[in-house]
Amino acid sequence: MTNYEQLLERIREAALLESTSEILTWDQETMMPPRGLEYRSRQLAQLARLSHEMATAPEIGDLLGEAESDASLDDGQKANVREIRRKYDKRVKVPAALVAEIAEVSSKAHAVWVKARQDSDFESFRPSLERLFELELQVAECIGVPDGGEPWDALADDYEAGLRAREIEPVFTSLRERLTSLLDKLLGGTPPDTAFRSVAVPIPDQKRLMRMVAGKLGFDFERGRLDVSTHPFTGGSHCNDVRITTRYNETDLLDALGGTVHETGHGLYEQGLPEAHIGTPLGEPVSFGIHESQSRLWENQVGRSRGFWKWLHPELPGYFGDAVAGFDLDTMYAAANAVEPSLIRVDADEATYNLHIMVRFELELAMFRRDLAIADVPDAWNQKMRDYLGIEVPDDRQGCLQDVHWSFGGFGYFPTYSLGNLYAAQFYETALAEIGDLEDQFAAGEFGALRQWLGEKIHRHGSRYRAGELCERVTGRPLDADALLRHLESKLTPIYQVG
Amino acid sequence: MTNYEQLLERIREAALLESTSEILTWDQETMMPPRGLEYRSRQLAQLARLSHEMATAPEIGDLLGEAESDASLDDGQKANVREIRRKYDKRVKVPAALVAEIAEVSSKAHAVWVKARQDSDFESFRPSLERLFELELQVAECIGVPDGGEPWDALADDYEAGLRAREIEPVFTSLRERLTSLLDKLLGGTPPDTAFRSVAVPIPDQKRLMRMVAGKLGFDFERGRLDVSTHPFTGGSHCNDVRITTRYNETDLLDALGGTVHETGHGLYEQGLPEAHIGTPLGEPVSFGIHESQSRLWENQVGRSRGFWKWLHPELPGYFGDAVAGFDLDTMYAAANAVEPSLIRVDADEATYNLHIMVRFELELAMFRRDLAIADVPDAWNQKMRDYLGIEVPDDRQGCLQDVHWSFGGFGYFPTYSLGNLYAAQFYETALAEIGDLEDQFAAGEFGALRQWLGEKIHRHGSRYRAGELCERVTGRPLDADALLRHLESKLTPIYQVG
Repeated sequence: MTNYEQLLERIREAALLESTSEILTWDQETMMPPRGLEYRSRQLAQLARLSHEMATAPEIGDLLGEAESDASLDDGQKANVREIRRKYDKRVKVPAALVAEIAEVSSKAHAVWVKARQDSDFESFRPSLERLFELELQVAECIGVPDGGEPWDALADDYEAGLRAREIEPVFTSLRERLTSLLDKLLGGTPPDTAFRSVAVPIPDQKRLMRMVAGKLGFDFERGRLDVSTHPFTGGSHCNDVRITTRYNETDLLDALGGTVHETGHGLYEQGLPEAHIGTPLGEPVSFGIHESQSRLWENQVGRSRGFWKWLHPELPGYFGDAVAGFDLDTMYAAANAVEPSLIRVDADEATYNLHIMVRFELELAMFRRDLAIADVPDAWNQKMRDYLGIEVPDDRQGCLQDVHWSFGGFGYFPTYSLGNLYAAQFYETALAEIGDLEDQFAAGEFGALRQWLGEKIHRHGSRYRAGELCERVTGRPLDADALLRHLESKLTPIYQVG
Repeated sequence: MTNYEQLLERIREAALLESTSEILTWDQETMMPPRGLEYRSRQLAQLARLSHEMATAPEIGDLLGEAESDASLDDGQKANVREIRRKYDKRVKVPAALVAEIAEVSSKAHAVWVKARQDSDFESFRPSLERLFELELQVAECIGVPDGGEPWDALADDYEAGLRAREIEPVFTSLRERLTSLLDKLLGGTPPDTAFRSVAVPIPDQKRLMRMVAGKLGFDFERGRLDVSTHPFTGGSHCNDVRITTRYNETDLLDALGGTVHETGHGLYEQGLPEAHIGTPLGEPVSFGIHESQSRLWENQVGRSRGFWKWLHPELPGYFGDAVAGFDLDTMYAAANAVEPSLIRVDADEATYNLHIMVRFELELAMFRRDLAIADVPDAWNQKMRDYLGIEVPDDRQGCLQDVHWSFGGFGYFPTYSLGNLYAAQFYETALAEIGDLEDQFAAGEFGALRQWLGEKIHRHGSRYRAGELCERVTGRPLDADALLRHLESKLTPIYQVG
């Protein structure tokens, strides 16, 4: 075996054990009986400890050094070495004691947050958040601030390799300004009838429909599953075992549909990763932002398109009978695209969603730049919600306590949602230019050409390219907010009969 | 920490990793998409290797030696040390190379067996079986033949600690002779109407019923699940996460019911093990035979009793409507107890089941005593089926190739099924004597008194006592065939209107 092959063997070994954790995590969210929780935490902690030991073995450092000076490697192999190095350095730079302290503090902080959210009491969570924030700053210091960057970048790198706050800020600022202006315009128009959203349809029938839809979009049930969980997510072990979930609401068909199509997008990405590279970066997704681009593209560009609804609306009576008889294509399509400023990010529509992210991104940056004290987060949050979405936050439960991310120290995560939306729009515009009649294909229930295009352009490369580089290769230009704005304006202004 | 506590910490650590394997195994049989198989095998092999390393660490040997000379240990702690020693010695005595060779050979042999069974071609499986047999003999030699025992005993010890062929032979011979004579008598009587077996009932309705039945018997869904698999089994991690399965047949309600009640018996045992001792012998089942006694007791002594059917039969129309309207209590009860010699063990009724086991047990002993060459197994099998069950085996697929056990080298396993039946009858007779009106309780849908009795007498002790000792403590006498014969004769002769 060459040094490179020995390196890969060790990396695959750690990845194999991590893939076992993935199954246990999926099981916990979908299958595990309630009383299994305590022992499950111990199982997961043990696996995390063992795979951390494997992934930080000094031999990996030695093999990496040798592989980096191996001139015989091809570009794909070099990309593998580059990504293995990036992750290895981060893992060995952060002392085990700090990792353990964060695990303990965040486990407790999470429980405090659950209670604080319930009671809408930010003050009871504040000390935990302050502590976690300081610990995460220590992590950023250990990793080291990248050239021309700042501490927040070191943390965001876990989710989006190479992301720099200063580079993304202008894109996000432009996005925010143009979105608030679009929102103003839409709210001055005529809101569509949304009665279709609340039609009562039995959950077993919804389940049959969702399985059909996921399969039709191309999700391979020989290599995956669709189940139920409180919050939809995509889990599983590898490209041949991908597990997506959705949730069901008896009086909101679009809830399960949105979840299913969104997670199918994630699932198609996972199923499209190259089997030969399982357990190495070339077989893994690029970043959270690119992952989210795949889910958002299917959820929004496809699942909220007129073509998609042209196909779906005559299918529905076969599942729900008379319950959906009173709704025509236009009504369904408009209901799926209704826009309304609201308090909760996860329930937000396509036009307002990114404004929720801007609030969080800007607050995080202010915290890390020491422009905002943790104690002042609630006021700052509420002011931004007023400024960007025009709504008053009645309590912290529906304000700055709503998201789980900060409770486990997940700073730098939120922007990946908006990056996903931006990438999705830019990818889809390119697909449309290259393939042509996508909406006609959707209307005929054909989704294969788009899926293959995404597989060819994005999925099969794994982490060979960084997100920014991939974007330029696929779309011919760096990421900007134009494509998303064009997409939203061209779709929403006719529905709201404005502009 | 004392030495004993350190020992337990290490044992619990290995058990924790093994419990992760259990979840993956359960997932493989119930949830995993088909294409996930290859990677799943690797996940399980990795976990097996890691937990083997943990369980055979030399430090455990040192700590065991110290714990064995620790006079301060109480009886429970001594039982823990005794069982840890038994397993540790076996694991370290068998060289890793032999374990690996068996894993490889049996993995291939299993695939060969699947094909050979399909083609009903024993000759194609013979070389694999011969190889596995020789390897298992080597294992027996490594472990060492117990005092007054023989090589087969060393292997059977994995399933039933301390079992000796020469001790169980007279019990089994007596059982076989009395069962063949009972069978002759029944077959001379009037067979009951079995039309109830083949009533068509939709699977979703069966599922609702099975969940109700398992819950009524006491299975705790806060600490367990009921799912579907090709062959019913009980899996899970520990007493707070117990996963039972059954299978469904649209035209055989008793198939799902038998599977559900049987596995509920296993599940109640698992859920009844003491939580404080998770991961140590005091928190683990005694043996396969005792485990099977719990499943068989619920399946046969309870689930095939008149009291049980008195309770269940008026419940059925609520699940199946008119489909079951034509069947009264007597018809259902008799159909559930019909006896008919048949070829396949797993489908056998309560009276003939143990004769299938006697065939296998006697052949295994003859092989290990070098009285029977592997090549002669099919003829010997068919002769015994003729002698004991009076039926001709048309091909090896329905004969000596039907069971999976030998294909993975599982010699010494089969007798535990009959031991389970014998223990079940002896335990139930004692329960009846101590509690009294059990059948009246069943008829009222009350199963708690029996469950609590089993919990108190058997479940809560984990592996504190060996199987034989437990039997004497609970029933006041060593294991014999009398209770089972009394049970079968008193129930079946009236149904067949004989004797």
